Amino acid sequence: MHKREWPTRVENLAIAPIGVIHTPFKSAEGTPIQGVAGKGAEGVVEVTPNLIEGLRDLEDFDRLWLIYQFDRASKAQLVVRPYLDTTERGVFATRSPVRPNHIGISVVRLLHIEQNCLYIADVDMLDGTPLLDIKPYVPAFDSFEQSHAGWLKAKSASDVVADNRFESGKADTE
Amino acid sequence: MHKREWPTRVENLAIAPIGVIHTPFKSAEGTPIQGVAGKGAEGVVEVTPNLIEGLRDLEDFDRLWLIYQFDRASKAQLVVRPYLDTTERGVFATRSPVRPNHIGISVVRLLHIEQNCLYIADVDMLDGTPLLDIKPYVPAFDSFEQSHAGWLKAKSASDVVADNRFESGKADTE
Repeated sequence: MHKREWPTRVENLAIAPIGVIHTPFKSAEGTPIQGVAGKGAEGVVEVTPNLIEGLRDLEDFDRLWLIYQFDRASKAQLVVRPYLDTTERGVFATRSPVRPNHIGISVVRLLHIEQNCLYIADVDMLDGTPLLDIKPYVPAFDSFEQSHAGWLKAKSASDVVADNRFESGKADTE
Repeated sequence: MHKREWPTRVENLAIAPIGVIHTPFKSAEGTPIQGVAGKGAEGVVEVTPNLIEGLRDLEDFDRLWLIYQFDRASKAQLVVRPYLDTTERGVFATRSPVRPNHIGISVVRLLHIEQNCLYIADVDMLDGTPLLDIKPYVPAFDSFEQSHAGWLKAKSASDVVADNRFESGKADTE
């Protein structure tokens, strides 16, 4: 396949938040890791009112993908020691926030929608996290129950909460 | 929960491509919809060589999330008629590229890694798509087999391919 020069910037990628995610988690310390671990923790996605028409048909989905900015992550690292491990791992083999582009994805349960507010459960984001996109969770596209998960295979996120190791202004663990 | 002013921009979100996705699909017309529909279609993710250390431990995962830019999508629409339907839907209830932020996510199968090149299968992106992030696919975080998928429940992506309706420079269908 033809290999081309590296693009030096993303053409026409005008990223702007489409809302904000309100959660009970004020700092990384104690925040669950991935929505499945935050079972029960509830939050509210507040979408900018001018985008409300885009929410049509969304309430009939059980779960959503939230695409958001890790806005309190410290600068990127290529190798990290994740919450779920004691070994250093390549950052792309982890869900750590300190990746080159500070973009996070999480599945949340949708409880109900009131106007521009989505009431959700199983949240794992920090309060005030900027929202970049909402997509419907579709098992046919997204669910691969038997997919082998490398070093994460034997780990259970359910019992683990985050600490402050990846927050801005905190000492890095590396 | 406290509601705050809308952020007018994403603070410190410096998005830059981390590589490029090579696929057999030169235009949207005929491109499969979501990786599961592109079963068999193979591609290569070429990661910028300076990020190669971040790929450590990745090869032991069966599947990856690719986060990428819909760089050939025409401008955002709040209501779209998706490939899988004949009815107009709110864009956040679809996986359409013409969303406010042109960010796409797809699960692909990882075949093997050679240096900074990831050989993958089940691709559904256009050739030359800018890559923004790679994350490991972790069933415990990402797999919800029974999640109800709203209007998409009864649709099968497997038989459907895209057309040019969302590409720049083409007439919109709306």
